[in-house]
Amino acid sequence: MAFPSWMYRIRSSLKHGYSVFRSAPAFRQSGRNGCLSDVDKLGARRPLHRWPSSVIPFAVAFSAGTVAYNLSLCDSSLDHRIIGEKTTTEVVVKGSHREVPEELVNELKAICNDRMTLDYDERYFHGKPQNSFHKAVNIPDLIVYPWSEGEVSQVVAACNKYKVPIVPYGGATSIEGHTLSPHGGVCIDMSLMKSIKSLHVEDMDVVVEPGVGWVELNEYLRPYGLFFPLDPGPGATIGGMCATRCSGSLAVRYGTMRDNVINLKAVLANGEVIKTASRARKSAAGYDLTRLMIGSEGTLGIITEVTLRLLKIPQYSVVAMCNFNTIKDAADVAIATMLSGIQVSRVELLDEVQIKAINIANGKNLPELPTLMFEFIGTEAYSHEQTLVVQKIVGEHNGSDFVFVGDAEAKKELWKIRKEALWACFAMEPNFEAMISDVCVPLSRLAECISVSKKELETSGLVCTVIAHAGDGNFHTIILFDPNNDEHRHEAARLNHFMVNTALSMEGTCTGEHGVGTGKMKYLEQEHGMEALRTMKKIKAALDPNNIMNPGKLIPPHVCI
Amino acid sequence: MAFPSWMYRIRSSLKHGYSVFRSAPAFRQSGRNGCLSDVDKLGARRPLHRWPSSVIPFAVAFSAGTVAYNLSLCDSSLDHRIIGEKTTTEVVVKGSHREVPEELVNELKAICNDRMTLDYDERYFHGKPQNSFHKAVNIPDLIVYPWSEGEVSQVVAACNKYKVPIVPYGGATSIEGHTLSPHGGVCIDMSLMKSIKSLHVEDMDVVVEPGVGWVELNEYLRPYGLFFPLDPGPGATIGGMCATRCSGSLAVRYGTMRDNVINLKAVLANGEVIKTASRARKSAAGYDLTRLMIGSEGTLGIITEVTLRLLKIPQYSVVAMCNFNTIKDAADVAIATMLSGIQVSRVELLDEVQIKAINIANGKNLPELPTLMFEFIGTEAYSHEQTLVVQKIVGEHNGSDFVFVGDAEAKKELWKIRKEALWACFAMEPNFEAMISDVCVPLSRLAECISVSKKELETSGLVCTVIAHAGDGNFHTIILFDPNNDEHRHEAARLNHFMVNTALSMEGTCTGEHGVGTGKMKYLEQEHGMEALRTMKKIKAALDPNNIMNPGKLIPPHVCI
Repeated sequence: MAFPSWMYRIRSSLKHGYSVFRSAPAFRQSGRNGCLSDVDKLGARRPLHRWPSSVIPFAVAFSAGTVAYNLSLCDSSLDHRIIGEKTTTEVVVKGSHREVPEELVNELKAICNDRMTLDYDERYFHGKPQNSFHKAVNIPDLIVYPWSEGEVSQVVAACNKYKVPIVPYGGATSIEGHTLSPHGGVCIDMSLMKSIKSLHVEDMDVVVEPGVGWVELNEYLRPYGLFFPLDPGPGATIGGMCATRCSGSLAVRYGTMRDNVINLKAVLANGEVIKTASRARKSAAGYDLTRLMIGSEGTLGIITEVTLRLLKIPQYSVVAMCNFNTIKDAADVAIATMLSGIQVSRVELLDEVQIKAINIANGKNLPELPTLMFEFIGTEAYSHEQTLVVQKIVGEHNGSDFVFVGDAEAKKELWKIRKEALWACFAMEPNFEAMISDVCVPLSRLAECISVSKKELETSGLVCTVIAHAGDGNFHTIILFDPNNDEHRHEAARLNHFMVNTALSMEGTCTGEHGVGTGKMKYLEQEHGMEALRTMKKIKAALDPNNIMNPGKLIPPHVCI
Repeated sequence: MAFPSWMYRIRSSLKHGYSVFRSAPAFRQSGRNGCLSDVDKLGARRPLHRWPSSVIPFAVAFSAGTVAYNLSLCDSSLDHRIIGEKTTTEVVVKGSHREVPEELVNELKAICNDRMTLDYDERYFHGKPQNSFHKAVNIPDLIVYPWSEGEVSQVVAACNKYKVPIVPYGGATSIEGHTLSPHGGVCIDMSLMKSIKSLHVEDMDVVVEPGVGWVELNEYLRPYGLFFPLDPGPGATIGGMCATRCSGSLAVRYGTMRDNVINLKAVLANGEVIKTASRARKSAAGYDLTRLMIGSEGTLGIITEVTLRLLKIPQYSVVAMCNFNTIKDAADVAIATMLSGIQVSRVELLDEVQIKAINIANGKNLPELPTLMFEFIGTEAYSHEQTLVVQKIVGEHNGSDFVFVGDAEAKKELWKIRKEALWACFAMEPNFEAMISDVCVPLSRLAECISVSKKELETSGLVCTVIAHAGDGNFHTIILFDPNNDEHRHEAARLNHFMVNTALSMEGTCTGEHGVGTGKMKYLEQEHGMEALRTMKKIKAALDPNNIMNPGKLIPPHVCI
């Protein structure tokens, strides 16, 4: 039985058996990447049944090109066999395995009791990221599922004593191999730490544990008229979102994770717990440890609590789409809109291939042309005022008239379709894998960078789509490739490399929102220079002298201090 | 002749003799804290005449309660005598003097030529901050005025070789003693590095040297329809603004320095130059060295170049004022406005004492009651829509009707008066000094924190004013005290301490935008905990093992790693 690759992603959301039963009907509605966080009420994911179990049911049965799903249960042992047969590694991350002494195993058992496992199923699952083409030669030697910050602290202190590597594990939606365990060691799965500790409506902030997902969080906040404005992949958790400095479609208005965290708590390599700041909205009191931890990808500490800035749900929004004959026109409109001073809340660009994928996967009939999706917010009058300004800009760049998306449900559906664009791609090539990459350039270079990259993608023979958070200068490519075809893999890697180099040559960054992990390390010297990398490594060495915190990630191995 | 304390501040703006002559007429118009940056065209401050000179003219002659000024020139030697007689030190920062070897002097002379001085006048001037009540036992042993990043790098590397302290010096407007030289050493005055290196209109960013002032910068940007949204004290420079993580009245909408720097370059303690990021608006590529440098107060590196995010000048604004019987009502309105979802661009709160000071200093006749000043921006229709919503909130909290400030000149004058509120205070007590402090609390605690602090201030017998960037939960007190009166000094210190402790007890910060310097170090343990302070010190030690970068600032001396 050959399962397509998206199935493992579904499984990622369904790893706790009991939840499959609970969530089945809702999962059916929630789309191909249906997450438990879509369906489980907050906190309900704390298992009622003991787990991990050696038999972990997982989801399946899917018919590409439709929105119908069936849910059945399979023995997870199947999973191993199938993955075992694959050789889909564009980059297999090497790493010498560090021994985990028996004493440490006993200590971790004493700390976490039955929330520690040596079970091969669980270890294998945690060692293979579900959303990434990156693989590693090793998997973690054991998994712990701490309940509390105190437990995390004890676990880390114990690992530090024995100099055993630690890999923190959140929603596992990261792209660049952040959760790989190239050196084996201890994987700390934070999924049980997902309570909302306190909501301060008047301060418009909320204190959460790192395992809370942003989708869950926004469900919780809706009755209060508040929301959290970051929207990465639906399974992403707040801890992981901090760790990778993520953003999403709303970043053009509300900023990235960097801008929306008031403070956080983290366990450092020596087991000490730090709190990075007070709950004040701004402060000039000392080094910005909050921002240092955000984007550090688990290499400096394990995030155990986060205080997030919230926003009022806008009273009114207008959603409008338009299309263009060329992707350059579309990108130019996004740029001109930003320069007009109009504060859009979203300006998303999708190329004609991506639109085609969406049509297939969602049964839509959108014009298969480069398309912009806008969202304007404010009062009713103001939203429409903005729309008129931008419609004029669109007209000046040979764009179509706006098609407005009317009611709330239709808007919600549109953003959901946009959010699930990646999964739609698999409707075009169900048995392929996806090499997903993102770069970000200064706004004035966006049209050129996309055009150059697009030209290269088009000549490749592979199916490639482009999606941009165009107001930020940030764009993604999804390159579909046959994992069993060497030429495909090499071509996908070449295209990825081409796009990153193009962005770097334009004063851009090798990743706007996905992070470095193992995949983008090789570009950091070109982007930052060796002096900056040495500075990063000095900080890493000062805080983690035994190099136990997510080793082999973010800082390239050739950096010497 | 007894000069009031504000005079030294004027002098701070007029330290270059030739500029006094050039700027005299404009200075007369620019108000009591008239800055060279108000009057000098960009780049013109690069001295035509050789300096430093042993005789530095400085400004004087002022009549409290009017807006008329005369400008005359005095020999700066007077200055020393007068300051020498004062014993105005609330905190005299102690420090063992580290020897500056003759070899280093020669090396610095070789690097900077005649832009290095051992002149006592200049050293004395740089050793006594002009905007702060903090003093130090030592002054710098020599001053260098580098022209370029390369020179800064060479200077720092030389100092590192001899383990001699370095104090970077910008606009010298900082409050908490950041530019003191408690250990002597080398003061690096960045005022000659003030070119605008490149403006990217389409990317809405600008690359500047650190000595550029924000007032100058905005003059330069105006013809392009762009502005930089940070507005601290008028003499502040971009480098210092980064170093102290400053903000101002517009931070409620645009964020602080943390949010508005795209990247920066800095010279580290070993003389290496790092660039912290690309020019992309967002990035997930590596540790956030940009934010690590912002707020590090010269203790990690010397900022030599900054790329700033710019904004379009709003097409329309409405400025409105209203007043209240109690300061709690005013604060409550600010809170309710933020919770309404209205995105004000300013919401400034001034207490009745501050309004009185403004009336005296500016010949105004504002109602001497707690007052809110609002700015709403957007299109004309939207600005007015917002005004109506907030007017309703004001009515619900017993506020007066809005008084609208009509034309552009009147708006400009109002924000100028607000910006110069500190100087207006001296109109009430011309011979006193000011203890200025700021804290920031979660928004829901603002009304209570201000009310409690205000009650304490009122019973003190000293003249104290309250000014708040109320939308951020950030407020300032200005406590006027007779520097020759011990009781006054102690009472001022007690009030400062009381306010900070109140804020800390409310999950707030000891400083929202002024920074730590020497003045707020003692509160950092209470705010952050020893674990976080140790983390900061480890980073400091890793990047500056000889502790030459602005030693004695930010990290409390009792922190051990």
